[in-house]
Amino acid sequence: MTKKVLKFGGTSVGSIERIKLVADIISNEHKKGYKLIIVLSAMSGITNSLISKSKKISENFDARELDVLLSTGEQESISLLAGALVSKGLKAKSWLNWQIPILTSGEHGNARIINLSKEKINKFLDSGGIAVLPGFQGISENGDITTTGRGGSDATAVAIAKLFETDTCEIFTDVDGIYSSDPNKIPVAKKIDKISYEEMLELSSLGAKVMQPSAVQTAMMYQIPLHVKSTFTNREGTKIFSEESINYDKVVTGVAYSKDEAKITLQGVDDKPGVAADIFSPLSEKQINIDMVIQNISLDGKKTDLTFTVKRSDLRKSTDLIKKNKKIKFSNLSFNEKVSKISVVGAGMVATPGVTYKMFKALAEEKINILAISTSEIKISVIINEDDTLKAIKKLHSEFKLD
Amino acid sequence: MTKKVLKFGGTSVGSIERIKLVADIISNEHKKGYKLIIVLSAMSGITNSLISKSKKISENFDARELDVLLSTGEQESISLLAGALVSKGLKAKSWLNWQIPILTSGEHGNARIINLSKEKINKFLDSGGIAVLPGFQGISENGDITTTGRGGSDATAVAIAKLFETDTCEIFTDVDGIYSSDPNKIPVAKKIDKISYEEMLELSSLGAKVMQPSAVQTAMMYQIPLHVKSTFTNREGTKIFSEESINYDKVVTGVAYSKDEAKITLQGVDDKPGVAADIFSPLSEKQINIDMVIQNISLDGKKTDLTFTVKRSDLRKSTDLIKKNKKIKFSNLSFNEKVSKISVVGAGMVATPGVTYKMFKALAEEKINILAISTSEIKISVIINEDDTLKAIKKLHSEFKLD
Repeated sequence: MTKKVLKFGGTSVGSIERIKLVADIISNEHKKGYKLIIVLSAMSGITNSLISKSKKISENFDARELDVLLSTGEQESISLLAGALVSKGLKAKSWLNWQIPILTSGEHGNARIINLSKEKINKFLDSGGIAVLPGFQGISENGDITTTGRGGSDATAVAIAKLFETDTCEIFTDVDGIYSSDPNKIPVAKKIDKISYEEMLELSSLGAKVMQPSAVQTAMMYQIPLHVKSTFTNREGTKIFSEESINYDKVVTGVAYSKDEAKITLQGVDDKPGVAADIFSPLSEKQINIDMVIQNISLDGKKTDLTFTVKRSDLRKSTDLIKKNKKIKFSNLSFNEKVSKISVVGAGMVATPGVTYKMFKALAEEKINILAISTSEIKISVIINEDDTLKAIKKLHSEFKLD
Repeated sequence: MTKKVLKFGGTSVGSIERIKLVADIISNEHKKGYKLIIVLSAMSGITNSLISKSKKISENFDARELDVLLSTGEQESISLLAGALVSKGLKAKSWLNWQIPILTSGEHGNARIINLSKEKINKFLDSGGIAVLPGFQGISENGDITTTGRGGSDATAVAIAKLFETDTCEIFTDVDGIYSSDPNKIPVAKKIDKISYEEMLELSSLGAKVMQPSAVQTAMMYQIPLHVKSTFTNREGTKIFSEESINYDKVVTGVAYSKDEAKITLQGVDDKPGVAADIFSPLSEKQINIDMVIQNISLDGKKTDLTFTVKRSDLRKSTDLIKKNKKIKFSNLSFNEKVSKISVVGAGMVATPGVTYKMFKALAEEKINILAISTSEIKISVIINEDDTLKAIKKLHSEFKLD
């Protein structure tokens, strides 16, 4: 019999009615003969409400006690679901982090699952039982409760799929898969049937919130096929697996965008080695992340212009640091916070020449000005004026036949 | 240094503000040099809300999973309080049932604490730490979470006081002690400064809800002094200890009452051995509890009348069973559900003759008719018409100088 991990997110177990629906889905999978390990998030809203209680006590609430507090969220959802399965006549049992145990390393609120004891659960699965496990948590080697950070239930599900060597890990959520762009804002966005880990990583680090990047990374590392689907529809969802297994019919898989950007330009900077380092080192010391950098070719060999992007929330801090920086000289500092970043992502790009050209041409046809560019093997990102965001995404969807 | 158990009930930790207040109380006790073990209930309302979630899934929600679910309530309150203590600069730590561990025997929802491992907690107390423990729960020998039944946090506190051999166990609640009668309904009721375990047991089994009878019983068995006081006032509260340590200045300590009674009378019953057994055995088979029984002296040696009381909710079932009972004969069945039970309780009674007479005389002076009587060493109960309840309690307060 095939072993499967099914993971249900917070909205999927967000009410008693939904927990019953999840019990029905599990019951159907059980009838098909699968051995099932279920991983749950806390009911939606619970974790936030617990965090806000802790903040009312102290903004610096003790990290150890916060993990004890937050772990109750999944304890609640797994006991309710296990009870719902039992009341349907199934053999099911909740397993707490310490009952398995799920061992973690790392600090409170940001722990990493390193191992778990499989024997008892495998015995239970062999006897026809359905094991219901909490996401997002484990215990440290001291026997303290630890959590793995927000969204950590995806990572738990993938870690469990890896440790139990299951065939797949199905991620049930409130959308019916991964889309070429945010379907709530971009009506032409289309569901993607299959996508590689690398593309998924690019899309999720660019703002697609369906799956946590760290979970995708682990799945990629151990070649665990993921299947993202909706708890509330019967649609096929999106399969995530390794690039080699995908027969690409499209060069571009998705178009991501972020309105979280700001562009800074320094004019009249000395064109000599070490200048860029002098400019950026005070920023990196303050944890400010520099995204794209463009340095124009110096016309006279003496002075040049430097443009780069930072997170919009870091803009003020960045310009202050540059003005205070005595190691550098420039004739003018300007910035633009009304910009957005548009990225086309696709593993098929590597083998297809001319994608960059096609993208630029498409944007030019819409008279969209490109303010900065950066490329990687499976991604091309451009900075454009914020007002052009929707127009650009729509155009790129039709250009790369995503709609 | 003296070791103390402080137990705080659900209303005492019912909000973040109250948890901060509890942290202040604990901080003061810590400053006095006590080694403190704190036992908490769940925040008020939480346990009921979890139960109602489980009932929405199934009226027969799995007992094992219900315990997993309910135990989150205290896990939440202990982590919040431990966090509040840490944020006040104190050394404090929550300990979960399995981290101690607290071992229980008995079935889910009704387990009994049998042992706990003291070493780690004693070491923590010796290092100046404040240990915050969950009431109401433990783990079974299989490693499953168990709970001890509603109100079980009192029992946990007393069991912990016993196992750690602490000097006292202080029960913080939302009233400022034990009263001679319910102070919300009987304005003349007075707070009792000291009371014996036996009296407390009689009062609590008669409806005084401040302390759980099983907790008082354990305290009595192991001679653990209890101190019931309010979280919200500085009043002295009520001390509960063994009879011998109390210098009784009053014969009667309290007056309890219950409106939960119904009286049944059978006239013309055969006056021969075994009749009472024939009448009561079908009732006891249906778990109906017979409280007081009065059998009149037979005038002719052939027929007699039998009067007894049952819980008002059992009245209909009782009369049905009697009518269906083919083993017994009677000329008439009558009942009265407009009755209440009034009890005077006092360990001083044993040594003081005439208490029964004083009680009857006092009630007679108010023209209150006594419908049934039962007495024990430290308690006299009478059944009267429900309408006379308040008048009777007031009169008995003045008769026995409780007001």
